[in-house]
Amino acid sequence: MSASPVTSPGLSAAPAHRPPVVAMVGAGQLARMTQQAAIALGVRLRVLANGGDCAVDAGAECVTGAPDRLDDLRTLAAGADVLTYDHEGVPPEHLAALEAEGVRLAPSATAKLLAQDKLHARRELAHAGFPVPAYAHARSEADVADFAAEHGWPLVAKAPRGGYDGRGVNTLAGPQNVPDALAGQPDGLLLEPHLQIERELAVLVARSPTGEAIAYPVVETIQHEAMCREILAPAPIDPALATEARDLALAVAEHAGGVGIVAVELFCTPDGLRVNELALRPHNSGHYTIEGCATSQFEQHLRAVLGWPLGLTNLLTPAVATVNVVGPADGSDPRARIADALAVPGAHVHLYAKASRPGRKLGHVTVCGAEPAAVRRTAQRAARALEGASA
Amino acid sequence: MSASPVTSPGLSAAPAHRPPVVAMVGAGQLARMTQQAAIALGVRLRVLANGGDCAVDAGAECVTGAPDRLDDLRTLAAGADVLTYDHEGVPPEHLAALEAEGVRLAPSATAKLLAQDKLHARRELAHAGFPVPAYAHARSEADVADFAAEHGWPLVAKAPRGGYDGRGVNTLAGPQNVPDALAGQPDGLLLEPHLQIERELAVLVARSPTGEAIAYPVVETIQHEAMCREILAPAPIDPALATEARDLALAVAEHAGGVGIVAVELFCTPDGLRVNELALRPHNSGHYTIEGCATSQFEQHLRAVLGWPLGLTNLLTPAVATVNVVGPADGSDPRARIADALAVPGAHVHLYAKASRPGRKLGHVTVCGAEPAAVRRTAQRAARALEGASA
Repeated sequence: MSASPVTSPGLSAAPAHRPPVVAMVGAGQLARMTQQAAIALGVRLRVLANGGDCAVDAGAECVTGAPDRLDDLRTLAAGADVLTYDHEGVPPEHLAALEAEGVRLAPSATAKLLAQDKLHARRELAHAGFPVPAYAHARSEADVADFAAEHGWPLVAKAPRGGYDGRGVNTLAGPQNVPDALAGQPDGLLLEPHLQIERELAVLVARSPTGEAIAYPVVETIQHEAMCREILAPAPIDPALATEARDLALAVAEHAGGVGIVAVELFCTPDGLRVNELALRPHNSGHYTIEGCATSQFEQHLRAVLGWPLGLTNLLTPAVATVNVVGPADGSDPRARIADALAVPGAHVHLYAKASRPGRKLGHVTVCGAEPAAVRRTAQRAARALEGASA
Repeated sequence: MSASPVTSPGLSAAPAHRPPVVAMVGAGQLARMTQQAAIALGVRLRVLANGGDCAVDAGAECVTGAPDRLDDLRTLAAGADVLTYDHEGVPPEHLAALEAEGVRLAPSATAKLLAQDKLHARRELAHAGFPVPAYAHARSEADVADFAAEHGWPLVAKAPRGGYDGRGVNTLAGPQNVPDALAGQPDGLLLEPHLQIERELAVLVARSPTGEAIAYPVVETIQHEAMCREILAPAPIDPALATEARDLALAVAEHAGGVGIVAVELFCTPDGLRVNELALRPHNSGHYTIEGCATSQFEQHLRAVLGWPLGLTNLLTPAVATVNVVGPADGSDPRARIADALAVPGAHVHLYAKASRPGRKLGHVTVCGAEPAAVRRTAQRAARALEGASA
């Protein structure tokens, strides 16, 4: 036998590895923290940004463009394994067009619409039998008057699309507020009664393309001036209510057909739980998972949208608190005070590399520990140190 | 009084924030993981790389160059707050030159030399009274013969500079091995007896420019073929021995004048602890701290070199195990098998974005939990899944 040269399949060089590419519409702090998770997994994160956004600062690959330009979205998606989002502000019709062109979206355009259009979500969830607040679609003063006749004043009026952190949400004290509220709302308003809200809860669900799903612990979200400022994990509620909230969130996420993180915001009312809003992306209420849970929501989102196995979601310590850092009224920059926050023992400081403006979310602090009140106080102390307030 | 326009200092815009810049010589996996920590702290990490290195892949700012070119080091340091390292391979005379030019090094050139030159470190530590293995500096066969006459064969011979992961370390079975060992070692060899090593320990110390210092838990490092393959935290040793190891490491780090992470490698011998080597940078034995400790070694290194307060170092769970992932003999790429590893519940997978070569460190897996044997088994299972071996 001649010794002809053969290539041993066992010893041949591996083909060059192509890292998975996840394209993300948006480049804010959610994309920034997703980039941290992408590094560990060897995933390349590509974001749609206007240049200097905070995920680009963190090293995500940048496609310069705007989410309302279909061609920019096409450039973002080109060659990526999957397209996902760090916000809601992308036109649904563009998502449908991308899907028609064969782009894999996670979540799908249909599912994403449940986070983009509050009125659509409310109708869809009500129709499916989920507990939602009473609501109406008001396009005229007469519509508002009808709803007020049934539920009384004040009412809450929400722009169906485009709001976040309380923007687009107004309280109508009486008929005198209605003309202003309707002005500039060609699609009308989502009305709901002024609910008696005992507390607000949020449940993150991670969901795979195969339908594999896992819920994170139920957390309480504390709002100041309509912006979520604190997250307390686990929510200080009765275990039976926590189970009910978790099961409700899992059912809503499944009904939504979400892929990736689905954040389900819930109201606790005297009449029971009500589903407020959905977000189909990593969510502000889940920042505590970075240090607080076995798998962060950002890693979990990547796993889910790539169809990889989901990770465990259990809390690592009995109590975790996250407090957001917002730009102080004096316009000063919390980044200049980072050493003061790091001096607080146990404080995990996250800065978003955003310029300081009063009221703007610029970072957060998470503290893990044994005792809920203590971790909350410690996180508040570090957040206040960044904001420059005397603790 | 006329209402002259005044600028309220309280409401003026904040001056543009300049993020702290940390320059790091090297761009390997240590720099890659430092980049993850830098994102949370709003620190800009700038690395010296040849282009496609794995920290650049993670988004660190890249200065293209080589660590043995002083001009490249100058470019790296220009405008940075501090210069630090992810390896030892930078000429000490270049570091001294940079210091003379006013560059702030962390650690200093003098301290760094203790990690760069094993013979220098051994002499320095012995002189200071720290327990070190018996040693000699051998430049000739006669020197080796003298040492063998005292300690017997076999001997261990180490190249004073440039070795890592067992490279540069040879066992001399007898006089017949000496000529080869001396060849190509113009600076001679560091000789030591073939110690009876019961186990190897490592202790990370974080140290600030002010001398503030804190030790991490003592860990056991398990070597396979002279490369560290597993880290078990805490080390399964008597508490009194752990305290002795911690105090020894703190004293060594202080004596070294280290700034940043100082890794102290220790041998447990029948005659007690012996200081083996130092690394003045984040260290392979500290990867477990990312998920396992209150502050990761990478964040801690950044805090320390920037002069910020140090973080807590306590373990978050009773047991943590890290298992390295090395390139399998068949040349295949572990990245292609990530889903298999993520399917192992509780496995934290870290991939370094390096091309697969047999025996090359390509990633690691960390598992936290209650029971040492269980976390180790789970981490091994996930690491083997990546390496493609049947578990």
